Amino acid sequence: MDLVIKNGKIVTATDVYNADIGIENGKITEIGKELRGDETIDAKGMIVFPGGIDIHTHLDMPFMGTSSSDDFKTGTIAAAFGGTTSFVDFSIQSKGDSLSKTVETWKKKAEGKAVIDYGFHVAVTDATDSVIEEIPKMAKEGITSLKLFLAYKGSLMIDDGGFFKVLQKAKESGSLVMVHAENGDVVDILVKKLLDEGKTDPIYHWESRPDKVEGEASGRAIALAEMAGAPLYIVHMTCKEALDKVRMARDKGLPIYAETCPQYLLLDKERYKEPDFGGAKYVMSPPLRMENDRKELWSGLVNGDLQVISTDHCPFFFKGQKDAGKGNFAKIPNGAPGIETRISLIYTEGVLKGHFGINKFVELVSTNPAKLFGMFPEKGTIAVGSDADIVIFDPKKEIVLKAENLHQNVDYTPFEGFKVKGYPVKTIIDGKIIIDDGNFTGTPGQGKFIKRKTFKVL
Amino acid sequence: MDLVIKNGKIVTATDVYNADIGIENGKITEIGKELRGDETIDAKGMIVFPGGIDIHTHLDMPFMGTSSSDDFKTGTIAAAFGGTTSFVDFSIQSKGDSLSKTVETWKKKAEGKAVIDYGFHVAVTDATDSVIEEIPKMAKEGITSLKLFLAYKGSLMIDDGGFFKVLQKAKESGSLVMVHAENGDVVDILVKKLLDEGKTDPIYHWESRPDKVEGEASGRAIALAEMAGAPLYIVHMTCKEALDKVRMARDKGLPIYAETCPQYLLLDKERYKEPDFGGAKYVMSPPLRMENDRKELWSGLVNGDLQVISTDHCPFFFKGQKDAGKGNFAKIPNGAPGIETRISLIYTEGVLKGHFGINKFVELVSTNPAKLFGMFPEKGTIAVGSDADIVIFDPKKEIVLKAENLHQNVDYTPFEGFKVKGYPVKTIIDGKIIIDDGNFTGTPGQGKFIKRKTFKVL
Amino acid sequence: MDLVIKNGKIVTATDVYNADIGIENGKITEIGKELRGDETIDAKGMIVFPGGIDIHTHLDMPFMGTSSSDDFKTGTIAAAFGGTTSFVDFSIQSKGDSLSKTVETWKKKAEGKAVIDYGFHVAVTDATDSVIEEIPKMAKEGITSLKLFLAYKGSLMIDDGGFFKVLQKAKESGSLVMVHAENGDVVDILVKKLLDEGKTDPIYHWESRPDKVEGEASGRAIALAEMAGAPLYIVHMTCKEALDKVRMARDKGLPIYAETCPQYLLLDKERYKEPDFGGAKYVMSPPLRMENDRKELWSGLVNGDLQVISTDHCPFFFKGQKDAGKGNFAKIPNGAPGIETRISLIYTEGVLKGHFGINKFVELVSTNPAKLFGMFPEKGTIAVGSDADIVIFDPKKEIVLKAENLHQNVDYTPFEGFKVKGYPVKTIIDGKIIIDDGNFTGTPGQGKFIKRKTFKVL
Amino acid sequence: MDLVIKNGKIVTATDVYNADIGIENGKITEIGKELRGDETIDAKGMIVFPGGIDIHTHLDMPFMGTSSSDDFKTGTIAAAFGGTTSFVDFSIQSKGDSLSKTVETWKKKAEGKAVIDYGFHVAVTDATDSVIEEIPKMAKEGITSLKLFLAYKGSLMIDDGGFFKVLQKAKESGSLVMVHAENGDVVDILVKKLLDEGKTDPIYHWESRPDKVEGEASGRAIALAEMAGAPLYIVHMTCKEALDKVRMARDKGLPIYAETCPQYLLLDKERYKEPDFGGAKYVMSPPLRMENDRKELWSGLVNGDLQVISTDHCPFFFKGQKDAGKGNFAKIPNGAPGIETRISLIYTEGVLKGHFGINKFVELVSTNPAKLFGMFPEKGTIAVGSDADIVIFDPKKEIVLKAENLHQNVDYTPFEGFKVKGYPVKTIIDGKIIIDDGNFTGTPGQGKFIKRKTFKVL
Repeated sequence: MDLVIKNGKIVTATDVYNADIGIENGKITEIGKELRGDETIDAKGMIVFPGGIDIHTHLDMPFMGTSSSDDFKTGTIAAAFGGTTSFVDFSIQSKGDSLSKTVETWKKKAEGKAVIDYGFHVAVTDATDSVIEEIPKMAKEGITSLKLFLAYKGSLMIDDGGFFKVLQKAKESGSLVMVHAENGDVVDILVKKLLDEGKTDPIYHWESRPDKVEGEASGRAIALAEMAGAPLYIVHMTCKEALDKVRMARDKGLPIYAETCPQYLLLDKERYKEPDFGGAKYVMSPPLRMENDRKELWSGLVNGDLQVISTDHCPFFFKGQKDAGKGNFAKIPNGAPGIETRISLIYTEGVLKGHFGINKFVELVSTNPAKLFGMFPEKGTIAVGSDADIVIFDPKKEIVLKAENLHQNVDYTPFEGFKVKGYPVKTIIDGKIIIDDGNFTGTPGQGKFIKRKTFKVL
Repeated sequence: MDLVIKNGKIVTATDVYNADIGIENGKITEIGKELRGDETIDAKGMIVFPGGIDIHTHLDMPFMGTSSSDDFKTGTIAAAFGGTTSFVDFSIQSKGDSLSKTVETWKKKAEGKAVIDYGFHVAVTDATDSVIEEIPKMAKEGITSLKLFLAYKGSLMIDDGGFFKVLQKAKESGSLVMVHAENGDVVDILVKKLLDEGKTDPIYHWESRPDKVEGEASGRAIALAEMAGAPLYIVHMTCKEALDKVRMARDKGLPIYAETCPQYLLLDKERYKEPDFGGAKYVMSPPLRMENDRKELWSGLVNGDLQVISTDHCPFFFKGQKDAGKGNFAKIPNGAPGIETRISLIYTEGVLKGHFGINKFVELVSTNPAKLFGMFPEKGTIAVGSDADIVIFDPKKEIVLKAENLHQNVDYTPFEGFKVKGYPVKTIIDGKIIIDDGNFTGTPGQGKFIKRKTFKVL
Repeated sequence: MDLVIKNGKIVTATDVYNADIGIENGKITEIGKELRGDETIDAKGMIVFPGGIDIHTHLDMPFMGTSSSDDFKTGTIAAAFGGTTSFVDFSIQSKGDSLSKTVETWKKKAEGKAVIDYGFHVAVTDATDSVIEEIPKMAKEGITSLKLFLAYKGSLMIDDGGFFKVLQKAKESGSLVMVHAENGDVVDILVKKLLDEGKTDPIYHWESRPDKVEGEASGRAIALAEMAGAPLYIVHMTCKEALDKVRMARDKGLPIYAETCPQYLLLDKERYKEPDFGGAKYVMSPPLRMENDRKELWSGLVNGDLQVISTDHCPFFFKGQKDAGKGNFAKIPNGAPGIETRISLIYTEGVLKGHFGINKFVELVSTNPAKLFGMFPEKGTIAVGSDADIVIFDPKKEIVLKAENLHQNVDYTPFEGFKVKGYPVKTIIDGKIIIDDGNFTGTPGQGKFIKRKTFKVL
Repeated sequence: MDLVIKNGKIVTATDVYNADIGIENGKITEIGKELRGDETIDAKGMIVFPGGIDIHTHLDMPFMGTSSSDDFKTGTIAAAFGGTTSFVDFSIQSKGDSLSKTVETWKKKAEGKAVIDYGFHVAVTDATDSVIEEIPKMAKEGITSLKLFLAYKGSLMIDDGGFFKVLQKAKESGSLVMVHAENGDVVDILVKKLLDEGKTDPIYHWESRPDKVEGEASGRAIALAEMAGAPLYIVHMTCKEALDKVRMARDKGLPIYAETCPQYLLLDKERYKEPDFGGAKYVMSPPLRMENDRKELWSGLVNGDLQVISTDHCPFFFKGQKDAGKGNFAKIPNGAPGIETRISLIYTEGVLKGHFGINKFVELVSTNPAKLFGMFPEKGTIAVGSDADIVIFDPKKEIVLKAENLHQNVDYTPFEGFKVKGYPVKTIIDGKIIIDDGNFTGTPGQGKFIKRKTFKVL
């Protein structure tokens, strides 16, 4: 065998056991005791789990007059440091463009740069008949998920008719529709009203996007999906108002799925009060919510109403990008970094603080993303035949998160000062070690496009 | 290695992959390709999954003036034929007895007879202070689950005070409380009223135990568990009225669990109309429900509000036992057989009919029972280090279920005539083949007592 | 006194008692025993209640290329025959018109014609800033309710932004927003799809507007009203999907109100199957629903989640108007007659069939409409000081409803053949008898414009 | 006419208008303008409404080793001062007694003492067959409501079987079952546990009866009523946990009713912290709750899920009675005074603070109690033919509530220091003024037994 990981505690979404893992040609070929290989990693005392999968990122994305600050090189290196070995980024249609062209544009951004495997969702912002007709072709090419925005009126937002048509066609094609659920019409009016009143600080971003805006849009999206007979995945859920809609839908047996992100689990509204424009660091949509919402989200993860933790990684420099919104919160680029810190934060805050066990942790950060987005069983598990995308995780390693020590191309982290216990020490992709005790040992461009399969009910 | 299972499609609650399984000293020691052993099973074309676990059986149980007709020998041989390799039976306290004595009595029933591994729940029917004090000791001895009846007034039923005390103590001890949720007071009155009106046929058993009786008791049991801060497991759930209570509880984040059984998924009220007293075959408590309830139960399984499918196997001969209730439905011994048919029925009706995938199937019939009842990871999965309790399942084998071909010691099956596709062809326990293509090759008494661990949130 | 009604059983939303009513100058001035007046009506054996108020009518309305067939003369005479003494019609903005101009147009339709008192809602179809600014002025002029359509894409439909702005301004002005809640985007797509498939019969009107379309829009409308802090009134509610949204809102304490209509209580989907294009008679939006929905609506009335029964009277001749949609259900003018039959139908089906008592009946058809729409206590009750708008109702009179015997200007009634027991025999407006045992004794133009007060919580 | 009340603003559950009221022989005979009578009250500037009806009082009741401190004289005089003109007290069965004997005992307590009209509920604490058989007879004698306790284990508490039998028989007899909904089994265990831990202060009374105890019992009571097909009235509801059960039931269309009391609307848990054993003043069952529960109760009143505000008047002297529980909260007599302060408090806090309008106020304190408990239209409204039980209420009168100024026979009021605006200045019963600007002018014994009618859906 090419590589053997010895003596680790292997964890999947179901199992926990001690064994060696044998790897050949980038695949796991054997799991047992006393395995031998050309190369050996001693994982004694370590937890060994399938590489993290982040299905919500925005690398190198033009947005609000600037671009997210991580490209496919910096962003994926950061991901690898954090224990993430695959991701799915959003290729976003410009009005007038075909979906094919959209995806091609994004593929070029990735090529020669990505160090981990990547797929693309395609975001439909202009649902003309010819665009709708491209959906089956996209699916055949491995783009089996579509994203729609009910927010960002005047730019990304789609109307209910466009949304409904996409749902109908996606269902035919076996694609999964993802939705950003905020009522863009209402947000638009609230933003104008606040600015008219001279309310321009970052906290008014929060005020302009109340939880009910998300609750309404989530309810509507679910209703339209139900009418179309299509499954639906709601991205970055933040609050009880929205989660209650998912609970009701799932109690009725509907195939409705939703994700949340570490920032919504760990941070709340208080952050917008940071002095010196500091609140701008947390300007993202939807915004951070109240303490009780955080509690509800944890509960939603435990009992299965939320199935995935992704990052919505969309970094902008605090100095040089975020400050475009000084004097007008509506001009602060929306987004925050997170691709590197997800795994360790969720292990610390989710597992060690007793919200859920370690199998659920793996399920949320790796297995469910793989299953819901057509990458399983190649990705998302440790089993004979799967890709050797593996994280060696030291459960005793304690770190205080600081932007300066992270590899994301951005000058802050929303999680500055968070103490985490448990950190990836080696990240293996395709059987190759690309993060080795704090050193990047991979090659830009080694990451491959993932041609994803069509959707299957979880 | 002692035994190698080659070329099968291995399925766990998470994974599906093709590999060989190596077994030594009754444990799985290696999973890989091209393994070699002293003995080899060729599982090409077969599905290989962890042995079924049935956590709700009543073997050799005195009840209603008779005894359930399967003892630990006949019942466990039948279980093994059906692909079940472990089970947990109910040892039921007689008023005045200690819990220790109760468990000892049941252990004796099993010893020298059981061919598969077994554990015991202990049912508390008389919650005196000294009985409550025994709960921690029971847990230490591996009896980490307790059963309470809110039904059977005058015999097994406990009042809310006794129930609450058991919940409090169980929480301290890490034990899981299981509850039979029907309002015994109301049933009692309805039974008398029906008999007074001369309504004595089996269908009046159905009328005497309406779904609201189960809904009420389920709601009450959950409320008491919530007040005690204790987890709760509701046995044999049958209907929307009760399931809605679980949904609400889980939406609030409470650790409430519930099981259903094949009979509630596949049969309904119409059965009570079978002529010639035939309805008596289906007299069990709670009774079969309406078609819509069946639909709700399937939905509850899919979305995770129900976590387990068990059998409530409690057989009585139609001729010789059930007929005690001719002329008085209240004297029909309550219960029906099912230990042998569970796996194949659920595979056929659940997986093949598209309710859920094969991972969920394994989760419901094996992994979750093991996890919830302290038997994981020894039982409930296929992983290095786990017990070699394995089923080789032929997905192409088609059978029409007939009582005469089954091994349960009873003269009927409620599933007579059901066509199943997919059937266990070999059952391996502890690394030994005990069912081999239709032949029992094991030894009575080879089954071992399972000392179960304390409860952990799923 | 001018007029005394003697010996009747007087019924209000609260009371039932026997007394005489004295009237002077069009007002009730005394209630007692042995009253004497210039003129006397002997109401022995009769029920005497406040005149019906219909707050949902469309007289003389241009729609779908034609006009509703009752004008303010024929329609109000029919209303008076049926026991309705006041109504509020919808003046509907044409794109580009001001609200003032809209109302003026409608006032002209009424003047010289109406025989009962009338008010106007104004329907906003084009929510420009200047239109929004007219809302307070409208309120001052007695137009204290606004109507918005979430349906009829491309003609009457407004987007969420326009709706939200109207809600905000209405709240400031003390006006009540009314909403037609169906998702016009989805309906539009479903209509096209059905027509593309060659499905052109009236029943496909039903299929093009599923209950979930109404449920979604009702939920959205409530969410937007909640965000605006405004009360909301949902018109012509038809189904459980929508009613459940109202129930949830009211359980949260929100000031959400809703009406239903006799056709939704008494008729259902089966009607669309009437041969010879007969289903077209029932083509209205939303469409008739299922039997279970009818049951839910009755329950909603009983327990207070629905507060009003109006008619949505919008008649089109079956021959000559409805037949425009032969071969294309989407061209059938939407609407049906009902202004004359409401009171008697609801008395018969609601009170006599035991759904609710006679006080609730008066509340639903008269008192609540008056209170919610700023006409109380002048209208909607029998009390000293109130307008003498009174119905003398013979509870023993039995009639079989037939279009040919009704006074509505239309060639059919959806309630053809319904047997009613209890019918108005005299209708008094402003102290004057205008319907006298089957004869119209009033004068076109005697009806007065009702300058309505601002909204107060019920 | 004997008496004319001139120029007042008359308010009923529906109406508000200015008129004179003429009274003869204790009945209202005329309502109009310029009426003349032998005696005249000038009510200019006053509000005139139907006398308050308190359907939940405990006068002269033996309980917990003592007796409530108001008898039928002191209690009814206090009631009259507060604007209450009728009440229904609880006659409580002693084990072994018949219901007839129970009621007779209570009638004797009232005779010669009561100054306002009175009825009795009968509380069943021992549901033997013969007691159940008395229910129809009781109904015939005007005792058309029954009370059951799910709390007070070992004394008043009844089991589910007894409760269910009473529900069944009550339904047959047209009687309304009222329930005290707390789970007595759980309370019992919590009380013992707290006392064992040395927790004896009044605040532990609060801790021993959590809201979930009330929620559970309310849910159970509703479920049993639903199964019996019987209406149900839940007394003294205090919290969201319980109210949510009522909301769900009513949303399903069930005839479930509930009351709350001023103390639960206006006071909360903080009161138990009053120093010097002061918390004992608020020891009642259920206990005061949290601020959020108060908010929910107001909302429940507004939207109709709660229909009545009663008092649960059950006074014990702080000095001499309450102090029996020093050192053991479980020995503090449960109960508090309120019969005199209800009307003014609810007007001030409900109407003036904008929770609801003045019609709803009359509905809650007078009309609904009369309708639900078979006393309408004699009681509960101002209409020709009704009893002349009338309150003249000065909306400008401001008072600070102080025990020393009240007429209840008890040394404290839970509402000490509350400022009220609006107070009864004259109370008229049977056409006679018995409270006249602060003076009692009636006669003990003038109050009459009210033979109540059977239950009708509200």
